Amino acid sequence: MGPLRLPSLSSIFVAPASCHRSPAIFRRLTKAGFYAQNAGEREVSGVTIGEVGNLKSNSRVQDRVITPRSQDFNAWYLDVVANAELADYGPVRGTMVIRPYGYAIWEKIQEYLNSKFKETGHSNMYFPQFIPYSFIEKEASHVEGFSPELALVTIGGGKELEEKLVVRPTSETIVNHMFTQWIHSYRDLPLMVNQWANVTRWEMRTKPFVRTLEFLWQEGHTAHATPEEAEKEALQMIDIYTRFAYEQAAIPVIAGRKSKMETFAGASKTYTIEAMMGDRKALQAGTSHNLGQNFSRAFGTQFTDENGQRQHVWQTSWAISTRFVGGIIMTHGDDAGLMLPPNIAPVQVVIVPIFKKADEKAEVLGAAIAVNEVLKSAGIKVELDDSDLRTPGWKFNFWEMKGVPLRIEIGPRDVFNGSVVISRRDIPGKQGKVFGISMEPSVLIPYIKDKLIEIQASLLDMAILFRDSNIVDVSSYDELKAAICEGKWARGPWSASDAEELKVKEETGATIRCFPFDQPQGSKTCLMTGDVAEEVAIFAKSY
Amino acid sequence: MGPLRLPSLSSIFVAPASCHRSPAIFRRLTKAGFYAQNAGEREVSGVTIGEVGNLKSNSRVQDRVITPRSQDFNAWYLDVVANAELADYGPVRGTMVIRPYGYAIWEKIQEYLNSKFKETGHSNMYFPQFIPYSFIEKEASHVEGFSPELALVTIGGGKELEEKLVVRPTSETIVNHMFTQWIHSYRDLPLMVNQWANVTRWEMRTKPFVRTLEFLWQEGHTAHATPEEAEKEALQMIDIYTRFAYEQAAIPVIAGRKSKMETFAGASKTYTIEAMMGDRKALQAGTSHNLGQNFSRAFGTQFTDENGQRQHVWQTSWAISTRFVGGIIMTHGDDAGLMLPPNIAPVQVVIVPIFKKADEKAEVLGAAIAVNEVLKSAGIKVELDDSDLRTPGWKFNFWEMKGVPLRIEIGPRDVFNGSVVISRRDIPGKQGKVFGISMEPSVLIPYIKDKLIEIQASLLDMAILFRDSNIVDVSSYDELKAAICEGKWARGPWSASDAEELKVKEETGATIRCFPFDQPQGSKTCLMTGDVAEEVAIFAKSY
Repeated sequence: MGPLRLPSLSSIFVAPASCHRSPAIFRRLTKAGFYAQNAGEREVSGVTIGEVGNLKSNSRVQDRVITPRSQDFNAWYLDVVANAELADYGPVRGTMVIRPYGYAIWEKIQEYLNSKFKETGHSNMYFPQFIPYSFIEKEASHVEGFSPELALVTIGGGKELEEKLVVRPTSETIVNHMFTQWIHSYRDLPLMVNQWANVTRWEMRTKPFVRTLEFLWQEGHTAHATPEEAEKEALQMIDIYTRFAYEQAAIPVIAGRKSKMETFAGASKTYTIEAMMGDRKALQAGTSHNLGQNFSRAFGTQFTDENGQRQHVWQTSWAISTRFVGGIIMTHGDDAGLMLPPNIAPVQVVIVPIFKKADEKAEVLGAAIAVNEVLKSAGIKVELDDSDLRTPGWKFNFWEMKGVPLRIEIGPRDVFNGSVVISRRDIPGKQGKVFGISMEPSVLIPYIKDKLIEIQASLLDMAILFRDSNIVDVSSYDELKAAICEGKWARGPWSASDAEELKVKEETGATIRCFPFDQPQGSKTCLMTGDVAEEVAIFAKSY
Repeated sequence: MGPLRLPSLSSIFVAPASCHRSPAIFRRLTKAGFYAQNAGEREVSGVTIGEVGNLKSNSRVQDRVITPRSQDFNAWYLDVVANAELADYGPVRGTMVIRPYGYAIWEKIQEYLNSKFKETGHSNMYFPQFIPYSFIEKEASHVEGFSPELALVTIGGGKELEEKLVVRPTSETIVNHMFTQWIHSYRDLPLMVNQWANVTRWEMRTKPFVRTLEFLWQEGHTAHATPEEAEKEALQMIDIYTRFAYEQAAIPVIAGRKSKMETFAGASKTYTIEAMMGDRKALQAGTSHNLGQNFSRAFGTQFTDENGQRQHVWQTSWAISTRFVGGIIMTHGDDAGLMLPPNIAPVQVVIVPIFKKADEKAEVLGAAIAVNEVLKSAGIKVELDDSDLRTPGWKFNFWEMKGVPLRIEIGPRDVFNGSVVISRRDIPGKQGKVFGISMEPSVLIPYIKDKLIEIQASLLDMAILFRDSNIVDVSSYDELKAAICEGKWARGPWSASDAEELKVKEETGATIRCFPFDQPQGSKTCLMTGDVAEEVAIFAKSY
C-alpha cells in the first residue's frame, strides 16, 4: 500500500474573492470533468470503459449530474441527497421521506449507539407521542422555548378534544409525569432509559436531514439521587457521542458546554458536539443536558432518600437525530457526491464486473460472484452490481456518487490473472487505483480490511486538517469579526454578558457554539471586554 | 431430563357453569396458594426460603399479588402487564407507555422480523407521519374504514393549517404518493420496503398492547409488475409471520384468508394469522394484504412495462404490531404471571444466590458471578439478581411473575458440591426442579441450552393442545352457536352471504376469523345454507 497522498492546503482552498458577498465559497478536491473522465478516458481490466458505455445508453450518466460543491454548497447538498437516494420531500411542507440508502446510514448510527447505551446501563422503552398541552406549560423556560414550534392535535375520532394534544417536540414533560409514578425511594434510582422515536417541530426553514418538521432521534432520560451523578451522566453521554463522531463517522467534533443563552430550554447545562461542515458552518450534532431539578420540581418527581427525607431527583436528557446523517454528507462529500466512512457505510465495497463479448460474461460473472461470497463471509458489507441494464462506466459514477469506500473491478484479463483492480473513493483517479491484487481469499480479505481501516483514518485526518485550518484564535472583537467574515470559526477568551453575546450574533451572524472542554493554558482576557476570562469560546455561523 | 408432564385435559378445564353468563370461565394450571408455597414450604440449597424471607421484610411479596387468571382473565391480564412492568398507562386516555421489560420483548420481535425482511429483499426506510387529509379520501373503502378513528393536526407553529393533517393510521396513501415519484419503468420493480413506526387510531375501547390509541408496528409496502408477484409476496409475508409465531413466540396461530367483510379497507385480499388466547378469544396477530391495483389506481402509480405500455402497479402491505406482545402474555401466562418462550425472553435464566450467614455471602456470590459469566459467554441471556434489598423468596416470585424460563439457585451447600439447582418456570413446584447439576461449564452450558429448547417446544405443544381442544367442527348453525356459547372456536363449511355472516356476528358475537389455508378434504355443504361450500371457515369471538 502506498502512502496516503493529501493534496496541499493551498491547492484545496481558494480564498474567497469578497468576504461579504460569498463567505462560503471554497474549493476542496474539485474534480472538474468528472463524468467525462470516467466515461471515456480510463482503460481498466482490458476493456475501455467508454467503449462499453457506448454499447448501451450512456446518457443515463447524465441523469445524475450534481452541482459542483465549490460552486453552490447548498445546491450540491440537495443534489447529493436526491441523487444518492438518501431522502425525498414528503407531501407536507418540511417533511422528509428517508429512503433506504439514507435509512441504512441511520441504522448504522442506531446500531452503534444502541450498544453503547446498553453497555452503560440504559434500557430502551417507549413513551406516547401525544402530550397534554398543560404539561408543556409546567416548566417555564421549556414552554417559552418550544411553544412557537408545536403541532397540535385538536380533533380525535371525529370530535373536538377537550384539551389540545401536543405532538412531542421532545419528551421531558411526559417522562417526568411517568417518572413520578415509578420513582419512590433511592432504591429506584438511578433510572436510566432511552427511546428511539419521531419528534415534531414546526420549523419554518427546513432542509433534508438538517432541519425537518418531523425527524427521528434517540432521546435518553435519566434520574439520579445526587447532582454529582447527574453531572457525571451528562458528561458520559456527550463523551459517547464524541467517540461515535470521531471513530465511526470520522467527524472531528469539538465537544464543550453551551453558553447560557444557547442552553436547552429547561436545562441547567447543555453539553454539545459541534461539527465543521464543508462550507465551514457549524452543525450542532448532538447534545447532552444536565437538567438539574428543573423538571423534577415542575412535576414533583421526588424520592425518599436513605435518611427518609423527600428530595427532588436530578436529571439528564441527551439526543442525537437524523440530522447527523446531514453532518456526514456535509463533512465528507465532494463534487462526485457522497463519501462515506467505512464504519458507517451500508455498502463498503462494490464489485463491478466488466466484459465486452458474450463469451466473457460467464467467467467474469463467475469470478465476481466468488469474490462477493468471499468478502461477505469475511463480514465485509459488499454489493455485486451485476445488472445488465447499466454500463460499467455508469456504475462507477453511480457508486462513487453513493460514497462507497472501495470498488473492485473484475474484467477478463483479471480473471485470467486471478486478480482484481481496487479503487478508493477518497483518492480520485489513478492515484487511488491498484491493479493486480490477488483474488486469493488469504490475500484479498486482509487487503480489503486494511484499506477500509486506512480510508476510515484518512477521512478523519482530512477532516481534522480542514477543521484546524479554519479555526482562528482571536483576541479582540475586530479579529473575531474578520474571522467570521472569512467564513471561519473564531476561538477566543470570553466572559462578557448575554447582551454582548447577542450583539455578536446580530452583527456577525455567529453564535457561541461552545466553551470547548479542551482549553488552552494560561491567563486570558475577554476579547470583548478586556476583563479576566476563565475560558475560550468558539464562535461560528451555524445550521 | 425427565419426560415433560402435561396435566390431563380434564384436570385443566372446568366446564363453564352457565354459558350465557360467563362464556370465558375456564381453568388451566391454576396454582392456588402460590405465594404461600414459595414463601414457606420449599427447602432449597441448604437454606429454607421462608426463613430467609423472615429475616427481611417479606411483605413486599404481597405488593405483587395478581388476580388469578381463572377468576378474571381481564383483571389478571392488567395485573400482569402492571406487575411485570411491561407497560403503563400514558397521561392521554388510551395511550400506553411501553416499559423496558415490555419493550425488550418488542425488540426481540423486531430483531427476528427485521432479519427475515432483509433476507427476503426488503429495505427499511421512513415515511412522514403527517398525511394530507385529501390523501385519505382518495381510496373509497380506505376512507370509509379509517375516517372514524383519525387524529387530526389542525394547528402548526401557532397557526391554523390550511389543510388538516392526519396522523398516520397506516401509510398506504403516502406510500403510493411517493411510489408514484420513484417508479417509472419495470426496471424499478419490484419495490419492496418496510418501516418501523408509530401509528395512531382513535380507539374508544383500549387495552394495553391489544388496542391502544398509539401503537408501534412495522408496515411493509411493495409494488410489483404482475398480480402473480403481488400474490406471491402477500403469501410469503404471512408465511414469515406464521413461522415467527410458531418458532419464536410458541403461538400456534391459524393462518388463512379473511372473509370479504373482514378484509382490510382498501385491500383485494387479506391474509391473517389468528391466535387463540387463554380465554379462548381470538387475536388477529398479523396481517398481509394483497392490495391489487386499488391504491395504484387511486394514486396513479404506474410503470412502463417491457412493451412500452403504461400499467398500474400491483401492491401488498403487511404488518405486525406491539399487539403481538399482548398475544404472548395471553397465550402463555398463568396465575403466577408471565411465562415467556425462551426464544423471545429478554432474560432466559435468572441466578438467585442464597445465603444466611455473612460468612457464606462471599463464596455464594463468587460462585453466582462465575456461573453468570460462564452462561453469558455462551450467548445465554442471563441475569444475576444479587440485590441485598430482597429475599430469595421474593426474588423467586418476582422472576416467575416476569416469566423467566429458568431459575438457577446457588446456596452454600451447592457451592460445596460444585453444583446448582435449576427450576423451570413452566413446570411449577418440585416437578420442575432439578438438584445437583454441575457448575462445570462443559456440563452446565449444554444442560441449560437443552432445557431452553425443551421449554420452547413444550410451550408450543401446550398451546397446540389447548387450541385443538377448543376448536369444534360444526355442520349446522345450531352447532356453531353452541360452540361459541361454550367459549370455543367453531370450524365449519361456509359459502353463505355477507348478510348471513353479519347475522352470525349479531346473534353470537363471533366473526369469521379466517378461511384457514389448511382445509379438510372432501365435499362440503355450507353450515348455514346447505349449499355447496368450497371451504371451511373459523368463527370465534375476538379481541
